[in-house]
Amino acid sequence: MTSEKPIRIVAMGKYLPEKVDSDEIEKRHGIPSGWSQKYSGVVSRHYVNEESVGFMGARAAEQALKNSNLTLNDIDLIISAGGSHDYIIPNQASIIKNQMEGGNSSDCPAIDIDSTCLSFVTALSIVSKILDGESMKTALIVSSEVASKGLDYSNWETTTLFGDGAGAAVVMYDEESDSCIVKANQKTYSEGAYNAIIEGGGIVNYFNEHPYDPQMHSFKMKGKKMLRMAKKKLPEFIDVFFSDLNCKLTDCTVVIPHQASKMGLHIFKQMYNFKDNQLKESLANYGNCIAASIPMTLADCIERGEIKRGDTCFMVGTSAGFSIGGMLIKF
Amino acid sequence: MTSEKPIRIVAMGKYLPEKVDSDEIEKRHGIPSGWSQKYSGVVSRHYVNEESVGFMGARAAEQALKNSNLTLNDIDLIISAGGSHDYIIPNQASIIKNQMEGGNSSDCPAIDIDSTCLSFVTALSIVSKILDGESMKTALIVSSEVASKGLDYSNWETTTLFGDGAGAAVVMYDEESDSCIVKANQKTYSEGAYNAIIEGGGIVNYFNEHPYDPQMHSFKMKGKKMLRMAKKKLPEFIDVFFSDLNCKLTDCTVVIPHQASKMGLHIFKQMYNFKDNQLKESLANYGNCIAASIPMTLADCIERGEIKRGDTCFMVGTSAGFSIGGMLIKF
Repeated sequence: MTSEKPIRIVAMGKYLPEKVDSDEIEKRHGIPSGWSQKYSGVVSRHYVNEESVGFMGARAAEQALKNSNLTLNDIDLIISAGGSHDYIIPNQASIIKNQMEGGNSSDCPAIDIDSTCLSFVTALSIVSKILDGESMKTALIVSSEVASKGLDYSNWETTTLFGDGAGAAVVMYDEESDSCIVKANQKTYSEGAYNAIIEGGGIVNYFNEHPYDPQMHSFKMKGKKMLRMAKKKLPEFIDVFFSDLNCKLTDCTVVIPHQASKMGLHIFKQMYNFKDNQLKESLANYGNCIAASIPMTLADCIERGEIKRGDTCFMVGTSAGFSIGGMLIKF
Repeated sequence: MTSEKPIRIVAMGKYLPEKVDSDEIEKRHGIPSGWSQKYSGVVSRHYVNEESVGFMGARAAEQALKNSNLTLNDIDLIISAGGSHDYIIPNQASIIKNQMEGGNSSDCPAIDIDSTCLSFVTALSIVSKILDGESMKTALIVSSEVASKGLDYSNWETTTLFGDGAGAAVVMYDEESDSCIVKANQKTYSEGAYNAIIEGGGIVNYFNEHPYDPQMHSFKMKGKKMLRMAKKKLPEFIDVFFSDLNCKLTDCTVVIPHQASKMGLHIFKQMYNFKDNQLKESLANYGNCIAASIPMTLADCIERGEIKRGDTCFMVGTSAGFSIGGMLIKF
């Protein structure tokens, strides 16, 4: 998926539900005080109360539009890019569009793209192929994730790690700009397909025969297996990615990894000689928000002025499946 | 989404689980004999026994590869295009790839695209943008659907209408060929987002607070509302679609509509003056198989020689969301 088309992230938006500090989580679930920060690296995360995937996504999308000085009438395509869904049917993008201000006055297509934690990167890569300035000029990508409902509270690792939130980006084909997607790539190593899973609730273990059981209907990961795969495959992936580019990973202005886990980020930092403030983290404040982690972190970097027009940004991550994805953009 | 790139459907594959005749369904659920054929137009459909979405998808995909004289090593991208999922996490394409012969020896990306019943058409449209003969040449699109588990057997309309099955296509960028995607388009009218829905099982009504209830965890549709929207929007959509082409709907060699319902197909036939054998139907033998209906019907047309190289094929349908999509290909 290589592209040098003039594709620009015009602006971004974000929605965070109520903040929940780790000491509160620890009290609620009988976890020793300080465990979350020490082992998961998460100081606070945000949990939905009444909010749905659609509600959070719609608010993040509206903010991205506002920050772009555009309206939904300027949008040619809406993509919901994530792993959590309000309903089995219809698709999530239709629900997000329905809940946006003016959503039902627009007839632009609304589709879902899911590569779990990498969904935002995959969607941005696909959008860069679709937008041509003629049939389609501007797209809206929304990653809205509710992880908190799929947690088994007897599992301290996942209970303290995950959070909810939404990030959205307005993406435009713009020949006037220097912005572009330099390169994108993804690899799926499906021998790891069952290493991160919610076993129940789908067709294999349908509700009628499998009533709710926190073990079956919550997210499980074989953390060590996933880390072992990441340790082996990620350096290979990055070597190949940069092999035909005239820059290397540590030349990028900022690097935004998926906020998978404290250990995952630690290993990644050890692999490369990053400069101060080059590698961006949001794990401590948001937890792992599945596909929303990368766009929320990017939105914060833009808002704080840590990434400016002309800067390069490398987004990279692993996801359930097991996939590795990366994308280099000139912002 | 207009494209005239040399994109060719190389070959297709299909998987059908066990056939279940309507009299058997009627006996099982206390439905009057003959009701299914009379009201749903379905004589028989196929239901999974032990098969999963992944299993059926993998078998259809393997057949498509075999019919293309290709192996998984030739594939640059796998897309699962449908509305049913074996698990909430990971994405379905990773599971299909894992279950394919040699799937774990390939590292090609595996992603999901979901626009419910239109997913195959959406995926083919997107693939036509991604394939460029350089970074990516060949893709595998798999639509595998298990509708039978999401049925409320007290609802005769849905119980008799839906079936399970899978269709797959190998799609190639091929400059040597005359085949192409002439044009594709989709519109989402999200005021109809809740007209076809499975209310339970997602984030809004999560399992822990909503134990299995056939009402909540089965597919519901406001059939009359959907038909009213289709009657209004579909002719507009088709008019606009063909307005800048030098052919009209009834010039296409074959027209393959989504097999939504007997009434939906009847209304569509009444709208246009189709020639004999121009409009292709599989509803009587397969029922409505969500996103798998269009590729399974197309696979049968190719196998029976009803569509040959150089022929034009228009695929069109409505989907939950509420969306209308259409695509004209030169096969």
